[in-house]
Amino acid sequence: MAESSSTGDRKQVVIVGGGFGGVRAAKALAGADVDVTLVDRTNHHLFQPLLYQVATGILSPGLIAPALRRVVKGQKNTRTLLAEVYDIDVDNRVVRSLGPNAQHIDLPYDYLVVAGGAGHAYFGHDEWAQYAPGMKSIEDARMLRSQILGSYELAELSTDDKEREALLTFVVVGAGPTGVEITGQLAELAQYVLPEEYRSIDTRQAKIILLDAAPSVLPPFDPKLQRYTQRRLEKMGVEIRLNTAATDMDAESITVKGPAGVDTIVSRTKIWAAGVKASPLATTLAKATGTETDRAGRLAVDPDCSVPNAEGVYAIGDMVSTVDRLPGVAQVAMQQGTYVGKQIVNRLKGDTTTPAPFKYFDKGSMATIGARQAVADAMGLKLTGWPAYLLWCYVHVAFLIGWGNRLGTLYNWVRSLRYARNRGHRLIDMTGAKAVAEQHEAA
Amino acid sequence: MAESSSTGDRKQVVIVGGGFGGVRAAKALAGADVDVTLVDRTNHHLFQPLLYQVATGILSPGLIAPALRRVVKGQKNTRTLLAEVYDIDVDNRVVRSLGPNAQHIDLPYDYLVVAGGAGHAYFGHDEWAQYAPGMKSIEDARMLRSQILGSYELAELSTDDKEREALLTFVVVGAGPTGVEITGQLAELAQYVLPEEYRSIDTRQAKIILLDAAPSVLPPFDPKLQRYTQRRLEKMGVEIRLNTAATDMDAESITVKGPAGVDTIVSRTKIWAAGVKASPLATTLAKATGTETDRAGRLAVDPDCSVPNAEGVYAIGDMVSTVDRLPGVAQVAMQQGTYVGKQIVNRLKGDTTTPAPFKYFDKGSMATIGARQAVADAMGLKLTGWPAYLLWCYVHVAFLIGWGNRLGTLYNWVRSLRYARNRGHRLIDMTGAKAVAEQHEAA
Repeated sequence: MAESSSTGDRKQVVIVGGGFGGVRAAKALAGADVDVTLVDRTNHHLFQPLLYQVATGILSPGLIAPALRRVVKGQKNTRTLLAEVYDIDVDNRVVRSLGPNAQHIDLPYDYLVVAGGAGHAYFGHDEWAQYAPGMKSIEDARMLRSQILGSYELAELSTDDKEREALLTFVVVGAGPTGVEITGQLAELAQYVLPEEYRSIDTRQAKIILLDAAPSVLPPFDPKLQRYTQRRLEKMGVEIRLNTAATDMDAESITVKGPAGVDTIVSRTKIWAAGVKASPLATTLAKATGTETDRAGRLAVDPDCSVPNAEGVYAIGDMVSTVDRLPGVAQVAMQQGTYVGKQIVNRLKGDTTTPAPFKYFDKGSMATIGARQAVADAMGLKLTGWPAYLLWCYVHVAFLIGWGNRLGTLYNWVRSLRYARNRGHRLIDMTGAKAVAEQHEAA
Repeated sequence: MAESSSTGDRKQVVIVGGGFGGVRAAKALAGADVDVTLVDRTNHHLFQPLLYQVATGILSPGLIAPALRRVVKGQKNTRTLLAEVYDIDVDNRVVRSLGPNAQHIDLPYDYLVVAGGAGHAYFGHDEWAQYAPGMKSIEDARMLRSQILGSYELAELSTDDKEREALLTFVVVGAGPTGVEITGQLAELAQYVLPEEYRSIDTRQAKIILLDAAPSVLPPFDPKLQRYTQRRLEKMGVEIRLNTAATDMDAESITVKGPAGVDTIVSRTKIWAAGVKASPLATTLAKATGTETDRAGRLAVDPDCSVPNAEGVYAIGDMVSTVDRLPGVAQVAMQQGTYVGKQIVNRLKGDTTTPAPFKYFDKGSMATIGARQAVADAMGLKLTGWPAYLLWCYVHVAFLIGWGNRLGTLYNWVRSLRYARNRGHRLIDMTGAKAVAEQHEAA
């Protein structure tokens, strides 16, 4: 059943993806004399930078995943569509999608914004995905939460020293902000949250290993902040292995190659925070328009974020590469979304001049290490400790969508500080203890 | 691999089930000179009376499901075990369970408290379970949430009037407190929360039907409160069919028989809030001891909650029946848990006298209808409206475990009041829009 989206004679704007870029593009079109359709394969926007806090029990999924309908509720020219886009026909200007009932839904467009984001890249080892899951969706985070907490449950039950060691060794691959942040929380769990709850094991004995092929943690940060981060993590018991890359892995172990040679670490839980790969929609667009993609599958867009050889089509965020090699962060996607949305508004008004190229305003970078510990490199300042942590809290809360989620998130952060040493959201998914074992069998 | 739980010469107390009864029994044994093992097949305690609020997006699952380890963290004589009990050997005094890795774990006991709770009963139509899910676990509530919210998503996409009607008709079977409460929230969603978010459908046109074989809603309540509840629900657009029972159902419809004869209602979402059936452990114990079970599979225990012909074994909560026919509510299970825990403490101290029979102190019953509307029948008072709603809030928050969860729950209630008209936790489970369709295909 093909359904047309056209509801009148107004121009049609289709936005693919309800992440940071897509939502900002939609917001920029509020009040414009167009019909906007925001398509996403889930029913929620997702604040990906906080997924690691769902995976470690601090936040409930709902706080970082508001319903997309709610986000654009007040925007009367915008409708939300739950469907998965599988093709873009740039010649006929139609987006082809599949609804939840596998019904085909065709969306004709005058302007199109593709903001499909990115998934994980395993450097040619796609089979590693099953052993070292990453965090890109609520499902990923929930599964990782079950695996992390489930490991302690299984270790408590185990009578085999070797098995217990495998269960209590956590390896994080990739020491960028995401890798550092999840590592810090794994250490917080083991050192401060869980110890008093177990009777047969000492959770403080858990081994937490962070590795990266680069010579330092947080590669793009200032060396002073890198050193601080490394010191703090080591103080929390984390073993950091630099110049070290994963070369192989299976359900029970991971093999790494570093300065000291090749080493096989027995570990049931590996977490992937290394490479990313653009949404397949980048390749779809590249093929349709004869445009290039880079090694990470990102589409090379023009300086105004338009897709070459595709009239009215823009692509933004983690799925594109620009000449100035911008990082794959929320800020870039958000600013591009607003930029592209405004451009469409101008063109709807009849403006045909070539727009000024997109310019990224870098507000800085930051990462949390543990409770009350963070590093921030913003506006010329290099902050560590409490000041960096407070700045980090402020920025992350400010960019959450909805006051309800902001307050709720702050509330859970207070609960997670060390005086309370609590994690409010520690469900192991699926009824029945067997689920935990299945996670491991699947992994 | 059989594992013995014995960790010394101290007496062993095993508690099966971490619900209201089991947790209270464990708490009563705090500080006693015994080893307590609390076994549950999930890693959390569950506040079942608020599951309907998870199913309708008000509360996040974590708020009503604190980790069991956390609950008994401070009780040094108590350990928590994630395993499913499949048999009880009363002759050899061993509980047999299966851990997450399918490892056999045998738990020898000196005293045993079985608090396995209850599941749903479909009056001899077990096949209805797939069409009309009930709410007994976090998984149930999450699935129902996906189905309810997914129905609106599918209706928004549908171009078929008949299909849209089926998607927007919600039938709740059973008008006890749970049935009334979920019905009220379905009406709140349709009338106040969702209308402004949809473009193709008017969510206020959703049909919400509540049916019960009894001649009134909330059968055990005072007639004045019954009439108030019925009036309020009808004012919120709910169609109430009394003296009406389900006679058949499938994925697309439900057939009911009432005063006006037989009627088939086209409806994709049916919710079961009618009969309950005791945990299979009741039958296990009945067979092992030659004790009776009633029609709902509940074990007939002695007046002191002990299981006849099984030395040192007690059974409590929804899985047992007593001579005074107590209702299957949290209060009964909690009071029985404390009672049994204290009894074990006394017997450990050498007290061999016959204990005074268990006496239930009825603190009253209550149910919410919608925001700021409830009925309460407590301590001789019959309350409605705001006063009943506030009392309901107070009681439910007071019995939640942990200050963090109490405050978090209160916070979400404020968010859900009509001035905000929000529901903070509206995730449709599983990445990809296909999940919604799969829910319906499965249902």
